[in-house]
Amino acid sequence: MFNKLKEECGIFGIYSKNNKDKLAYLTCIGLSALQHRGEESCGIAANEDGIINYHKDMGLVSDVFTKKVLDKIPDSKMVIGHVRYSTTGLDKKENAQPLVVRYKKGNLAVAHNGNLTNTLDLKNKLANKGAIFTTTSDTELICKVIVQERLKTHSMEDAIVRTMKKIKGAYSLLIMSSKKLIAVRDPQGFRPLCMGKLNDNIMFASESCAFDILGGEFIRDLAPGEMVVVSDNKVIAKNYFPDKKHGMCIFEYIYFARPDSIMDGISIHHFRENTGRYLAKQAHVNADIVAGVPDSGIDAALGYSKESGIPYDIVFTKSKYIGRTFIQNSQYKRQSTISLKLNPLKNVVKGKLTLL
Amino acid sequence: MFNKLKEECGIFGIYSKNNKDKLAYLTCIGLSALQHRGEESCGIAANEDGIINYHKDMGLVSDVFTKKVLDKIPDSKMVIGHVRYSTTGLDKKENAQPLVVRYKKGNLAVAHNGNLTNTLDLKNKLANKGAIFTTTSDTELICKVIVQERLKTHSMEDAIVRTMKKIKGAYSLLIMSSKKLIAVRDPQGFRPLCMGKLNDNIMFASESCAFDILGGEFIRDLAPGEMVVVSDNKVIAKNYFPDKKHGMCIFEYIYFARPDSIMDGISIHHFRENTGRYLAKQAHVNADIVAGVPDSGIDAALGYSKESGIPYDIVFTKSKYIGRTFIQNSQYKRQSTISLKLNPLKNVVKGKLTLL
Amino acid sequence: MFNKLKEECGIFGIYSKNNKDKLAYLTCIGLSALQHRGEESCGIAANEDGIINYHKDMGLVSDVFTKKVLDKIPDSKMVIGHVRYSTTGLDKKENAQPLVVRYKKGNLAVAHNGNLTNTLDLKNKLANKGAIFTTTSDTELICKVIVQERLKTHSMEDAIVRTMKKIKGAYSLLIMSSKKLIAVRDPQGFRPLCMGKLNDNIMFASESCAFDILGGEFIRDLAPGEMVVVSDNKVIAKNYFPDKKHGMCIFEYIYFARPDSIMDGISIHHFRENTGRYLAKQAHVNADIVAGVPDSGIDAALGYSKESGIPYDIVFTKSKYIGRTFIQNSQYKRQSTISLKLNPLKNVVKGKLTLL
Amino acid sequence: MFNKLKEECGIFGIYSKNNKDKLAYLTCIGLSALQHRGEESCGIAANEDGIINYHKDMGLVSDVFTKKVLDKIPDSKMVIGHVRYSTTGLDKKENAQPLVVRYKKGNLAVAHNGNLTNTLDLKNKLANKGAIFTTTSDTELICKVIVQERLKTHSMEDAIVRTMKKIKGAYSLLIMSSKKLIAVRDPQGFRPLCMGKLNDNIMFASESCAFDILGGEFIRDLAPGEMVVVSDNKVIAKNYFPDKKHGMCIFEYIYFARPDSIMDGISIHHFRENTGRYLAKQAHVNADIVAGVPDSGIDAALGYSKESGIPYDIVFTKSKYIGRTFIQNSQYKRQSTISLKLNPLKNVVKGKLTLL
Repeated sequence: MFNKLKEECGIFGIYSKNNKDKLAYLTCIGLSALQHRGEESCGIAANEDGIINYHKDMGLVSDVFTKKVLDKIPDSKMVIGHVRYSTTGLDKKENAQPLVVRYKKGNLAVAHNGNLTNTLDLKNKLANKGAIFTTTSDTELICKVIVQERLKTHSMEDAIVRTMKKIKGAYSLLIMSSKKLIAVRDPQGFRPLCMGKLNDNIMFASESCAFDILGGEFIRDLAPGEMVVVSDNKVIAKNYFPDKKHGMCIFEYIYFARPDSIMDGISIHHFRENTGRYLAKQAHVNADIVAGVPDSGIDAALGYSKESGIPYDIVFTKSKYIGRTFIQNSQYKRQSTISLKLNPLKNVVKGKLTLL
Repeated sequence: MFNKLKEECGIFGIYSKNNKDKLAYLTCIGLSALQHRGEESCGIAANEDGIINYHKDMGLVSDVFTKKVLDKIPDSKMVIGHVRYSTTGLDKKENAQPLVVRYKKGNLAVAHNGNLTNTLDLKNKLANKGAIFTTTSDTELICKVIVQERLKTHSMEDAIVRTMKKIKGAYSLLIMSSKKLIAVRDPQGFRPLCMGKLNDNIMFASESCAFDILGGEFIRDLAPGEMVVVSDNKVIAKNYFPDKKHGMCIFEYIYFARPDSIMDGISIHHFRENTGRYLAKQAHVNADIVAGVPDSGIDAALGYSKESGIPYDIVFTKSKYIGRTFIQNSQYKRQSTISLKLNPLKNVVKGKLTLL
Repeated sequence: MFNKLKEECGIFGIYSKNNKDKLAYLTCIGLSALQHRGEESCGIAANEDGIINYHKDMGLVSDVFTKKVLDKIPDSKMVIGHVRYSTTGLDKKENAQPLVVRYKKGNLAVAHNGNLTNTLDLKNKLANKGAIFTTTSDTELICKVIVQERLKTHSMEDAIVRTMKKIKGAYSLLIMSSKKLIAVRDPQGFRPLCMGKLNDNIMFASESCAFDILGGEFIRDLAPGEMVVVSDNKVIAKNYFPDKKHGMCIFEYIYFARPDSIMDGISIHHFRENTGRYLAKQAHVNADIVAGVPDSGIDAALGYSKESGIPYDIVFTKSKYIGRTFIQNSQYKRQSTISLKLNPLKNVVKGKLTLL
Repeated sequence: MFNKLKEECGIFGIYSKNNKDKLAYLTCIGLSALQHRGEESCGIAANEDGIINYHKDMGLVSDVFTKKVLDKIPDSKMVIGHVRYSTTGLDKKENAQPLVVRYKKGNLAVAHNGNLTNTLDLKNKLANKGAIFTTTSDTELICKVIVQERLKTHSMEDAIVRTMKKIKGAYSLLIMSSKKLIAVRDPQGFRPLCMGKLNDNIMFASESCAFDILGGEFIRDLAPGEMVVVSDNKVIAKNYFPDKKHGMCIFEYIYFARPDSIMDGISIHHFRENTGRYLAKQAHVNADIVAGVPDSGIDAALGYSKESGIPYDIVFTKSKYIGRTFIQNSQYKRQSTISLKLNPLKNVVKGKLTLL
């Protein structure tokens, strides 16, 4: 379970109809809004007249994409970006995304949020033909399959549909070719992906909060199995797998997503509050107060309070600074990092508040 | 007013009776708990057998005090540390604290939180005698006065009392000499300073939350005008200015301090909640909900709700990532950074929540 | 021509019979001795019980391989390393070597010095089968060919021989599989590669100076077309292309190599001195002194002096500091960087030297 | 002796008559030419309309003064800079120069090369009056004395002359006040200091090579005891100590200075060559060749060869990369760093050089 939790990511893409905006800057702001989905590494791939350049590194968006780095990224028609969760090992820079490759038909960049379930099977098939893998990510695998299918068909769209029939599991993908920006959501819609706009720019993001932060508008979620293609300043959407049963990962609602996002029509905050209301109905307790553990428990506590009538209160403060690196190797590691992050409030009042 | 707001700082000190703990590590954790009081620069001065070494730099505690840096700091009997708020200029590294100096009687390290009101007068007096200033901080001034008084008297304690008679304004000080760790609070108690313990270690901190985070115990606040001296494994407290009127800075309660801290006997959280209650009594409005602007408005909103009976709710999410450097110079600076940090929640529910 | 000059690299590999030495440290020292062959990026791949970990980054060996990084590299039976020359582009980290891949039979690491001449042809063949390329280097191509051949045959050695028949051009390779360290030199011996030892360790390096610096011994150059395999603590050498004509790149002798290296039996210093002697015979001039432009012209000037009888003298000083980054974008870029690096000596003596 | 060797520094200053050039850039290039005099730390102080800003840090000029840092330094009428040799300790950033202070009459920046011999006596006198010291450098001491004298007299020039009567030992100083750039050399001329020009800019430097690198002209050395004041676009020179015996540190000629510099009328290269000639006369030996240990021994070896008639040759290569940090803590520290830096050439020729 927790292994699974570690495999979350955030993706963001933008296509400019008028070429007026600095898409790399906009992508950085969008990725910052998705930073909670992955703090380990981040990257941006920018398409300038069909040539895809990229920059990716370990660290937060604000650390990796300094003004100096952003200014080096040329003005682009399309940009995709990615934030990635923490892993272990001597050097996992190799797994930073987007993955940018060259193949027979040109350049290709892929940003992926999800986990395939038939990875091993697909990898073996490719390995038997002599494939080499330079990363341990599913993204490289998806890339290889897309490219192989692309050689058998006449369009990138067809290649992606054929790929979707081969790969199984959870995936939301942003695929950028020389001329197209393509967004895809897996047939069961395990992972979120939505579409928005900002002036004349079309945007895609894992969570709608990215559009809010940029001052843009949320248009809609992609449907499970849907593919949206932006090219020649037009947007074409088609669902190749319309009948699959929807299976959005419940952890998005419970834990991962930002409360200000809307996923598949449901406000995350509202969902969490409702879980609290539901819990109050199912399991009423006699208590003086209801309080939540920050951050994701706050909304549910408020819902429990509203439903049960037990007063809502605040009990814990969460430190936003503690928990970084230096404590990791110290003698104080044995003290739970949880205790370093959460501290209970005190209602002590010695003497008299002059104000009241 | 806002200039004043920028002059906040956090101080932390620890004295070990048994020399068993790595005080530099403990100080780093303590300073992290006080990080909200100053994000610009930080520093640690460590006393090893009377010799004071130090390290200070621009940046957060977790960035400046890497394991590599901490491991270079020798085991010490006493350590003091400081976090400092943001200023401007080509190079303000000079103002990072603690200030460590050599003088006739040995080494001296000073960490200061506050602002003097007679700075100019004192500086002029010293300048007329040929003094040079290498920083623009009051700390250097305080240091010079302490040293001058020290030469006229027989103990550091006396020198500090004489200094307290000369300097006017707000100051909480941690002063470390070769053999003593001395904590001082100005006679009106403008700035907070409290005492705690962790096993056999005596600690001082701007806010009590630092003791909580370290798993220690809060003992008490220093009284306005009080001096606490720790030396030879003994703690001696004396108040040389007992009759002054108390004037703790109200902004500590309203804005600066962490809600889990207790200052002069009053829980910050409780105080903020009470301001909300008070506001509800003074200015009742008809409304559907009461909500706070994170972070410091949350507690007051809850108090208003409790007092008025208007339901408390959550309206804004605050991003913990956005607002860092890269946006500063971009075309998007004109968009308020506030809007990047705060985003309203949505209560949209399209369709039906399967859970409920 | 100058494009070609930019494609130089240095490679180093070491195999430990007794597992006593820290091979990552030794490799760093060896790479430092080869640093003049490539200052852009560097990397190390370490084989611990068949698992290959690696670290590579932009920068000099001394900047990339800090003690902290080296200490994270596990004790290994074999290590290979690489230094790479400067290129341009938004992000060329992708081309840093060694290239480490996973394939059907396990791990593979390749460090390459050279340039293929049939790159395009080979890439097209692979691309037609659906291959993707994540770098622009020949190394990735060589890797793919080796892996494809490996699936058709029973040993890595056979796969490499088959690869050598397919790739054309200049290459010296260090190939590390789960159990073997293999050194290969192209059939015409365009690029240097030699073998040495240090206690029980077998070493390979682009230049013999790496062995000197480590306190080791030079054994011999690999012959053109020769493959040396170190596995199970045994060294097996075989030349699969013995009859090819030797074509060592003359620029190694003239410009690239360190004067203290010996390549294919010829001391670089001696060679350069002899070019000066040869020039003196071919083109005698009447002159007062002969002087060389540092660094690579010094030896030739001395040779010219010896042959011609014209006194050798020193005219230029070469700065070892100037020419780094900060000047690049300044208004002073228009001043030739050459003039910043080289400054003529003056023989002024005003007054009298008291010594003489 | 070696302790003394470690106390070398380089200083550079420039005064612009026309305000057209970016003095911070020019100073960086000048400091780079003096980098061999100090690799530990460096700094620049820039005077913009009487306000002195500065930047200094540990590291080489090219590392500390990136374009980003240089661009932040405002256009200035005068700039002084400093490079400093290596010392030890937890944090010696405090000793980086120039030292910039505020005092009764305004700002003052001082860059110092030298060592006083009455440091302790002067420090005690000041300490007895309550002085505090934030650095361990003589520069702070000199600063304090200048400021004290300045309060007793009517001009900075007088204050400096009075200071020169109090401080004893070796010093070359660049002193920048709000309106003046003053260069001073100690009465015995222990340390070098010379004057040059570049277009309308007046320059001072420890060595003349700095002027060459900038494309400027060497004017002359300052005489021992001389003070040169540049203000109001005029240059006024006066020698207040004309009768002292000259005592330039011989190590400048033998070891420290760059061979392309001229000091007190003597070419360093010429001097070194002459020491070789002198040695040949004093101590002739029968030998096949004469060779020098790079870098400073090369010139002397050539002189010995010229005088003795024994052929000059090259024996050692000096690595410009090895000797940096990573080796310091490794198991290979026991191997002399000298052996890592110097490697003998080999005259091996196996087989036949096709060229000859």
